[in-house]
Amino acid sequence: MTTLRPEPFRGMRDVLPNECEVRDFLWDRIRRTYASWGYPRIETPAVERMEVLFGSDGGENEKLVFQILKRGEKLEKADNLADMVDGGLRYDLTVPLARFIAANRADLPMPFRALQFGPVWRAERPQKGRFRQFNQCDVDVVGLEAPLAELELTQATSACLAAIGLRDFAVRLNDRRILHAMCKAAGYTDEQRGGVLVTLDKVDKIGLGGVVQELLPMGESAAAFMERALKLAEQPTLTAQAFVSAMALDVPANVVADLELVHSELAKAGGAAWGARFDPSLVRGMGYYTGMIFEVQHTKYSYALGGGGRYDDMIGRFTGTSLPACGFSIGFERMVVALMEQGLKPDASTTHAAYLAEGTQGFAHAQTHATRTRQGGGTAVVHVRKKKVGKQIAALHATGFTTVYFVNEAGECTLDQGGGSDRDAG
Amino acid sequence: MTTLRPEPFRGMRDVLPNECEVRDFLWDRIRRTYASWGYPRIETPAVERMEVLFGSDGGENEKLVFQILKRGEKLEKADNLADMVDGGLRYDLTVPLARFIAANRADLPMPFRALQFGPVWRAERPQKGRFRQFNQCDVDVVGLEAPLAELELTQATSACLAAIGLRDFAVRLNDRRILHAMCKAAGYTDEQRGGVLVTLDKVDKIGLGGVVQELLPMGESAAAFMERALKLAEQPTLTAQAFVSAMALDVPANVVADLELVHSELAKAGGAAWGARFDPSLVRGMGYYTGMIFEVQHTKYSYALGGGGRYDDMIGRFTGTSLPACGFSIGFERMVVALMEQGLKPDASTTHAAYLAEGTQGFAHAQTHATRTRQGGGTAVVHVRKKKVGKQIAALHATGFTTVYFVNEAGECTLDQGGGSDRDAG
Repeated sequence: MTTLRPEPFRGMRDVLPNECEVRDFLWDRIRRTYASWGYPRIETPAVERMEVLFGSDGGENEKLVFQILKRGEKLEKADNLADMVDGGLRYDLTVPLARFIAANRADLPMPFRALQFGPVWRAERPQKGRFRQFNQCDVDVVGLEAPLAELELTQATSACLAAIGLRDFAVRLNDRRILHAMCKAAGYTDEQRGGVLVTLDKVDKIGLGGVVQELLPMGESAAAFMERALKLAEQPTLTAQAFVSAMALDVPANVVADLELVHSELAKAGGAAWGARFDPSLVRGMGYYTGMIFEVQHTKYSYALGGGGRYDDMIGRFTGTSLPACGFSIGFERMVVALMEQGLKPDASTTHAAYLAEGTQGFAHAQTHATRTRQGGGTAVVHVRKKKVGKQIAALHATGFTTVYFVNEAGECTLDQGGGSDRDAG
Repeated sequence: MTTLRPEPFRGMRDVLPNECEVRDFLWDRIRRTYASWGYPRIETPAVERMEVLFGSDGGENEKLVFQILKRGEKLEKADNLADMVDGGLRYDLTVPLARFIAANRADLPMPFRALQFGPVWRAERPQKGRFRQFNQCDVDVVGLEAPLAELELTQATSACLAAIGLRDFAVRLNDRRILHAMCKAAGYTDEQRGGVLVTLDKVDKIGLGGVVQELLPMGESAAAFMERALKLAEQPTLTAQAFVSAMALDVPANVVADLELVHSELAKAGGAAWGARFDPSLVRGMGYYTGMIFEVQHTKYSYALGGGGRYDDMIGRFTGTSLPACGFSIGFERMVVALMEQGLKPDASTTHAAYLAEGTQGFAHAQTHATRTRQGGGTAVVHVRKKKVGKQIAALHATGFTTVYFVNEAGECTLDQGGGSDRDAG
């Protein structure tokens, strides 16, 4: 018999019980927290039509989509590559949400709050710690104007992180319109802006000096302006008003007022547990943001635990009229890694009993005994008693099964009184 | 602006909050029940290599797989259709489990118990109530010989259905080796057997007469033998021993003994709550079963709520040596439909409070009030107070928000004392 290679598809992975337990713990906390804030869960399919995926954020993402071949006659009739394909695996949950809202609007209350959780796929070159299938977790509010959705989402998400047990984090706030005003005041053209923001977004990686180096070819005075802005951004107590005044930016008054309101309410709600700061160097990659943007940052390790912002124009691609929308994407996979590193043991509190049974009859009797433990809220597993029972019991103890019973063929059940693996010698 | 059509990919669907709530309720019950029986959850990716999918159960399933196009250079170099594809969406959870066991065997305890839950995809022609993406829920035990895994799985699954709140069901039991002995005793060749079993499997749909009609072209005496067997199968109190004797079948003694043991233990565990019966007309479609097979049937509506059996040879396709394995697949989607029809309201017990806020400041204050309700375990949602507040409150009451507060710009919070939508006239 020729055997098949058992590895998963390249760049994807299996998840073993230990990690699944952490994933379930995390997802339970997230779901319960947002449910208590009035965010019900919704689902969209894994596959979307190509124009749904490609019509949105454009160029960059096209290469990242796993494309699905047509079937039967339609495939036979196709005469070029584009015509052979009719769907692709979703690469995020925001595009499907926009389609969902447009498709189901008549059945949804407005404003509509939603929690999504599920896999997305990206056909990137596999590398350490980056997989081609991973889970995203998004919360969105549709139909609520600024700054109300921003106020709620930043607080709800901070409360969610606290419920998970995370403490060392802060919310960084900015607004795309402040970034645009910075670019304009520096002297960049609208065409240059996209590239300038991509460079700005790298400040965490390449530092202030690196950013300035990259900007220099587009003009010295503009680069000097941005350097001044980024230096100001390093002040942890910087306010939006102070920044806009200092840099003489042309920004509508409500942009500044909304940032300051969200900042102060966040600080109030979090008390000493979490912080908030205005940070004009925050860019957030996605081009679809139209207003306030935010990112939750681990204050010790400085990586992002999630982020989001307002994207008022995206749903309009499906409905024809724009609908206010604001969302937050939680870094689920990163949190799993963090919790795994902490060695989280989610359900150490319940009874874990093992029943070691002799023979088929003993196994049947043991199930009856074990079911009493299960009905009492505990976990109970039945095993065939091995010859080296001391070794078997030691292995059970090591995996959290602290209570061990023996069940013989007659159904008699006795508690193991210990004795270690020495007994195996006898 | 040209707008994009918002429908989901053909044959797939969006899931709205009401149904998600039922899905979450159901999955929680399933997960907790099997956890208490010692079944941890595992995950495999949605995409598998083509030879993993096509190497298994063969012909029938190939057409059902959504195939994924290669990318970049590899796609450009491909000179035929088969070479353009490197993966496909999984069509069940059993094939991925077999691959998972082979890939991760060194890290798994033996016997290994596992619970899987997730979407599978089938490129079938869409029809009412059948979708091309749906969730499966499988429980499997690997490394445990017959009849131990069979004993445990049928009891655990029955306990799970009871925990969900289902009462009217019975487990039908049979063994592939009894079906094979029936075919042999009837006089069918090994080549004819597959077709005969496909016909037998239709007895629920086309009746005993229809089955006999379909079998007649393959010989009158053989059809008469199968008719006699199917008539016996209609007896609800038929035992495996009585059937094997009456039909003079050549079946190993342990096949009969195992069926009778599982039958009697199931009857014992279920008490009056669920039944079990030996039914030699049970076939179960999949070709990979090697021993006992079972199906849970709704006794009122006679549809299956799940089924499974022993498949000792499948994991060997990856490992080279066969490993005992036995599994149960729970009809998750069918149960969702059943619970939706019952009008399940999962969390009617917790407080549902709505805060109607005036202005941006009122909205911010209302979040502070609402968070107290959330921290007390309730659900609280903040809305902008509408002009037609009576209508707004009526809509909230209709969706389960029975407690309504008003919060003004100064942050004062007052309970709505009722008054209905009359107040809107004022």
